[in-house]
Amino acid sequence: MGFSGKKMSREWDGVVTEVEDVRYFAGYSTLERQLTLLSDRIRISSYNAAILGNADNFAGRVVLDVGCGTGILSAIAARAGAKKVYAVEATDAVEFAKKLMVANNLDDVVTVYHNTVEKLELPEKVDIIVSEFMGNFLLRESVMDSVLFARDKFLKSDGAMYPSHCKMFFAPVYSERLAEDVWDTYHRNLKSWEVAAEVVFDLAGFDIKSLAGEYEDSLTTGLHSSFGVEVEPPEMLGPAVVVKEIDMLTTTFEDVKQVKKSFELKIDHCVDQKPPKLNMFAGWFSASFKGSPFAPSLVEVNCNNSPLNEDTHWGQEGFLVREPLDLTNVDKILCEIDMSRTEKNWRMYDVRVTHQTCSTDGKLGPQLSTLYTLC
Amino acid sequence: MGFSGKKMSREWDGVVTEVEDVRYFAGYSTLERQLTLLSDRIRISSYNAAILGNADNFAGRVVLDVGCGTGILSAIAARAGAKKVYAVEATDAVEFAKKLMVANNLDDVVTVYHNTVEKLELPEKVDIIVSEFMGNFLLRESVMDSVLFARDKFLKSDGAMYPSHCKMFFAPVYSERLAEDVWDTYHRNLKSWEVAAEVVFDLAGFDIKSLAGEYEDSLTTGLHSSFGVEVEPPEMLGPAVVVKEIDMLTTTFEDVKQVKKSFELKIDHCVDQKPPKLNMFAGWFSASFKGSPFAPSLVEVNCNNSPLNEDTHWGQEGFLVREPLDLTNVDKILCEIDMSRTEKNWRMYDVRVTHQTCSTDGKLGPQLSTLYTLC
Repeated sequence: MGFSGKKMSREWDGVVTEVEDVRYFAGYSTLERQLTLLSDRIRISSYNAAILGNADNFAGRVVLDVGCGTGILSAIAARAGAKKVYAVEATDAVEFAKKLMVANNLDDVVTVYHNTVEKLELPEKVDIIVSEFMGNFLLRESVMDSVLFARDKFLKSDGAMYPSHCKMFFAPVYSERLAEDVWDTYHRNLKSWEVAAEVVFDLAGFDIKSLAGEYEDSLTTGLHSSFGVEVEPPEMLGPAVVVKEIDMLTTTFEDVKQVKKSFELKIDHCVDQKPPKLNMFAGWFSASFKGSPFAPSLVEVNCNNSPLNEDTHWGQEGFLVREPLDLTNVDKILCEIDMSRTEKNWRMYDVRVTHQTCSTDGKLGPQLSTLYTLC
Repeated sequence: MGFSGKKMSREWDGVVTEVEDVRYFAGYSTLERQLTLLSDRIRISSYNAAILGNADNFAGRVVLDVGCGTGILSAIAARAGAKKVYAVEATDAVEFAKKLMVANNLDDVVTVYHNTVEKLELPEKVDIIVSEFMGNFLLRESVMDSVLFARDKFLKSDGAMYPSHCKMFFAPVYSERLAEDVWDTYHRNLKSWEVAAEVVFDLAGFDIKSLAGEYEDSLTTGLHSSFGVEVEPPEMLGPAVVVKEIDMLTTTFEDVKQVKKSFELKIDHCVDQKPPKLNMFAGWFSASFKGSPFAPSLVEVNCNNSPLNEDTHWGQEGFLVREPLDLTNVDKILCEIDMSRTEKNWRMYDVRVTHQTCSTDGKLGPQLSTLYTLC
């Protein structure tokens, strides 16, 4: 993760947005990161099918690609017959995008801007906004803000968003494998801390063992932060629930700044352990390409990072339940998710998950609540 | 490496220093990074011996600790009898430093500031500046600038610097082991690139294979960047040469912004390979604690990251020679090193190494030159 702003000092609040943008964009400037995106078969084929499969809607239209990266989506839009494509990218990946257009004789159709969309000026409004803006569990990285900004500034009133609709999913999981990874990291960090404390005590005579305190939080990354996982289908304990639906044409900044939803998770499957347990929740998203009310898609593409589908670079986001829940006789879990931007970094979210088991006889377990960081 | 500013966009020049500082400091805010520093036995014991071994020079004096991190050096100075210690730290590690002082009843002697030394104001001048500012090959990270700034602003005219003197060393090396690491990374990156190109071609029909161009530079990290190594003593092909000596009391910013030196590397030892070869240069530093002309150290401590000494967290910095040099009948290498700050990031250096083999009969090989980034 090139992006590690978690411990950003408060001292820097005055420049924090610009500063964090630079750190954020620097992460995506590396070829390594771009390769991860380019190697994601589901990602590439979804956009390719959504755009080329609806070439009639692109033919002769003006398109804006927000955060074009290496420029692939813009090139596809141009090939689909777009009259003009404006591609904007804040990172050095823009150099690659420019070369891609020249190499494919698309540089007359596609104009590539090295800029943030917030600072971009265009000579005209656009018919379609294409963007691959989705972070883990959809909202991580908060790039949707930039897409909504672009929509409000540049999209014609009868324009279309690609993707047009997004959903966030949440599901109950039991995975010893994934929990072990988190605990291994925790214990490795703890060990490093103990070694350091020993060295300092041996050589300088100061006892620092008891001093980590709140600062020790970084030891517990994974316990209090969500983390990227690839859940195996048998590890899912029940169907996923939609916790948020977003219509990209009408949603507002406020809609995505806070997501709060109460819901029930059905437990209809137990991983082979006695007693049956839950030790994790998993979140992911889908993005659908339905076109607009004025120009609906002929081919409707849906890109969904469910554990039941082929793996993507996004995977799912895991929220570890530190003390596994006993699911004996439990057939549902009453759940609430409450997500809001972290105070320190607007590209991250605090995610509070509150849950309570409910047995077949209606008996409720204790209400438990954990605050995670989606970072 | 929390610090990965290599691909910083030019667009951001206006805020680049402040921005890079934030990214830089964020790296040191993590407990993980601090643990690496605290676990370095040579580092801790050198400062401990230099300060406590010269407690007479610290007794009753006023001390400034520049970049105090977790505060260990300040605590040692206080224990050595300093009347007052000002400890300044720009990262969140400062919280730890504050706790350390309270836990050891040193908070009346040590005042901890959460600030950069450039913005710090003190109520008085100081007798001694203590700082662990050294980066790999001494100059990486450019923290010495802050120490020199502190010296010019806060140190009394008869004050002392701890450390007082630094040296930079350069040596000829042959290590298949270390070269293999670099090439493995290179080939792994190349493979990722090929996979991505294949996916894009298969699914979207664009041929991007030939497009990486200059952007491809990030594939060759290690080939054009120096990298941290731990050279084994038998891998050294001859004695190290001092390429720079720095007196911390008198050196200037200009002195460390550019380092240029011509020198000869003697080849007096060959690793067991036929023909004998060189495939790397290694750079490291030493820091000595001699006190000042007015208050020389009784116990003179010297911390040296030579491959011949116990490992430190710094280790050495390796500069790979892509095509190994044939050393048959070669008894010396004519060398020039020319280091200057990179244009994109003042905490990094461009390092040009020019070299030419010289045989026992005086015959010169071709003059070769490589530009590396110390990043």
